[in-house]
Amino acid sequence: MYIVETKIFKSDEPVLLESGRELKHIEVAYETYGALNPQGDNAILLLHALTGDAHAAGWHIGDKKPGWWNDMVGSGKAFDTDKYFVVCSNMLGGCSGTTGPNSINPETGKEYGLGFPVITIEDVVKVQKKLVDFLGIKKLTVAGGSMGGMQALEWALTYGDMVDRVIVIASTPRLSAQSIAFNAVGRNAILSDPNFNNGNYYHGKKPEKGLAIARMIGHITYLCEEAMHEKFARRFQDKDGPGFNFDIDFEVESYLAHQGQTFVDRFDANSYLYITKAVDYFDVAGKYGSLEKAFEKTKSKFLVISFTSDWLFPSSQSKELVNALMNNKKDVSYCEIDSPCGHDAFLLEYEVQTKIIRSFLCTD
Amino acid sequence: MYIVETKIFKSDEPVLLESGRELKHIEVAYETYGALNPQGDNAILLLHALTGDAHAAGWHIGDKKPGWWNDMVGSGKAFDTDKYFVVCSNMLGGCSGTTGPNSINPETGKEYGLGFPVITIEDVVKVQKKLVDFLGIKKLTVAGGSMGGMQALEWALTYGDMVDRVIVIASTPRLSAQSIAFNAVGRNAILSDPNFNNGNYYHGKKPEKGLAIARMIGHITYLCEEAMHEKFARRFQDKDGPGFNFDIDFEVESYLAHQGQTFVDRFDANSYLYITKAVDYFDVAGKYGSLEKAFEKTKSKFLVISFTSDWLFPSSQSKELVNALMNNKKDVSYCEIDSPCGHDAFLLEYEVQTKIIRSFLCTD
Repeated sequence: MYIVETKIFKSDEPVLLESGRELKHIEVAYETYGALNPQGDNAILLLHALTGDAHAAGWHIGDKKPGWWNDMVGSGKAFDTDKYFVVCSNMLGGCSGTTGPNSINPETGKEYGLGFPVITIEDVVKVQKKLVDFLGIKKLTVAGGSMGGMQALEWALTYGDMVDRVIVIASTPRLSAQSIAFNAVGRNAILSDPNFNNGNYYHGKKPEKGLAIARMIGHITYLCEEAMHEKFARRFQDKDGPGFNFDIDFEVESYLAHQGQTFVDRFDANSYLYITKAVDYFDVAGKYGSLEKAFEKTKSKFLVISFTSDWLFPSSQSKELVNALMNNKKDVSYCEIDSPCGHDAFLLEYEVQTKIIRSFLCTD
Repeated sequence: MYIVETKIFKSDEPVLLESGRELKHIEVAYETYGALNPQGDNAILLLHALTGDAHAAGWHIGDKKPGWWNDMVGSGKAFDTDKYFVVCSNMLGGCSGTTGPNSINPETGKEYGLGFPVITIEDVVKVQKKLVDFLGIKKLTVAGGSMGGMQALEWALTYGDMVDRVIVIASTPRLSAQSIAFNAVGRNAILSDPNFNNGNYYHGKKPEKGLAIARMIGHITYLCEEAMHEKFARRFQDKDGPGFNFDIDFEVESYLAHQGQTFVDRFDANSYLYITKAVDYFDVAGKYGSLEKAFEKTKSKFLVISFTSDWLFPSSQSKELVNALMNNKKDVSYCEIDSPCGHDAFLLEYEVQTKIIRSFLCTD
């Protein structure tokens, strides 16, 4: 069992955000696995998804389960800690150690709440860059699934000179209207919760019901219809037929309620608002005019992976990215993995991903 | 302009429900278009979807828009009122004139609220049968989209001797786990609204925020990704870029908020709970052992229509039904219509549906 701990990087260098606002002090929670070589060029930065954290791999003392990508990070794994210095940090706006709406605003001495500036994926990556410099990294691979893939793309676009390789999994260069709609309804549920109290709930009742609803909506989009059918079909929960009331009837309802409840125990509703908004705003083609233009000058090698049953960020969106890179004659590999696991496949299908990623990392 | 009005059928004959409970008095709001012939065999019963009502066609005095299937009902239309006696009633459990949770419970003198019995599609059809008998109908065609299609199937299963033809559009013989999940989250939003007050809100503030969230979730499932992209893409609402706050940013958010708001003005949250529950429970194969067994003895002719972009009740579910009928050597026609309109296509694609339905109704 590989014991790790989360460290904190602190900086008083002001961070100018896309909104024009500034953060004067930031802290970044991060973990590292493996060792940086003297040239500082064997680093892999892992970028977490919507509700992830710095704890990508190994075990904290007392953990009941390991980090969220433990199957992919370690000796001999996809991200091989015998060869690479692997880093993962909690994102700006998160709630697991990095500065976010639940942090103390040094100007008021109270939690930021909705006083926290609205952030973008660009801002998130700008803060990661400070950590990377602090750690002495000169060249790196960036890799992430879902929203992590968006951050990987942003790394390639803004700090391309440092980025050797880019791994974008189950991700998209921009959300569809449908995905924005799901996020908007989730935020609406949080904002409508009477305990939300304009974001000032840190010392009272929390908007747990709203956050649970947001999570349940999200969770439906992380699985696919077939996966849900495989898992639950139409089985009743602890009974043989209808209850003829509004309690939980079906197993799938019980599962969703459980997902909602465990989520509110570990996640901050304000962070959910800020992070989904950052995701909604991310739009490579919108910013650069087109995907082709965006990647005109990139020198990084790309690996793009999508999953057949992912309907949140479907393969067609990965293919748009791949086509833009190919039209620019860039070095890009693309794999569409046949999987019944829906969007969550990037967390689950580690065997096939391991083969593809190890091979991608070894090529010149 | 074809002026119509909604009538009320009342019955004091007790209705025994699937749950074992009984309703002693029921009222049914209905409309009719065209005339019943002396033999009583030219009737078409239209069955509405989740939030529909008896007002399928024509105009009420003061209406800003006609009935919900006006494009399909009238002289020379799909359901031709020159030839047929067309009937539509609000469903049991609804909130537009038929007995439901917002009706007065004769035993208490107050609204039923959650004291209303949980109902099933079978109960809904049982009440429709009373109306059909009252109107002197001997033989009929039953037709409906979405949940209306479920009712059409139930008519064929339980009152098959009366049912010449069955038209099932954008429907399913049972919900998938994913569809149950969406309904469950919508109900959760209503039940979590502090104004819900255990269903007793008729004389105070209503659970509008919860009901609006339920409607927004539903609405996403009624459109498809492509339709949403066509309609909204990633356009900002009344501005050129991000607002960097939690107000509405994108057109699709504004559209959903509008859908939510207009819905709470016309629909009762308790009805939403009861009707989605009835839909969740409906399961032809579960009840009869298999779809094949269910339709072993049917003598009705079936027309099944599905739409390529409907991901709520996808074509695969219609095909299961069609295959079961074909395996029983029953008379069934199936059309999969190529449409970008998602599940809502049954309300929108009237031209192609008109051709198919008119042809189906004319065959011997």
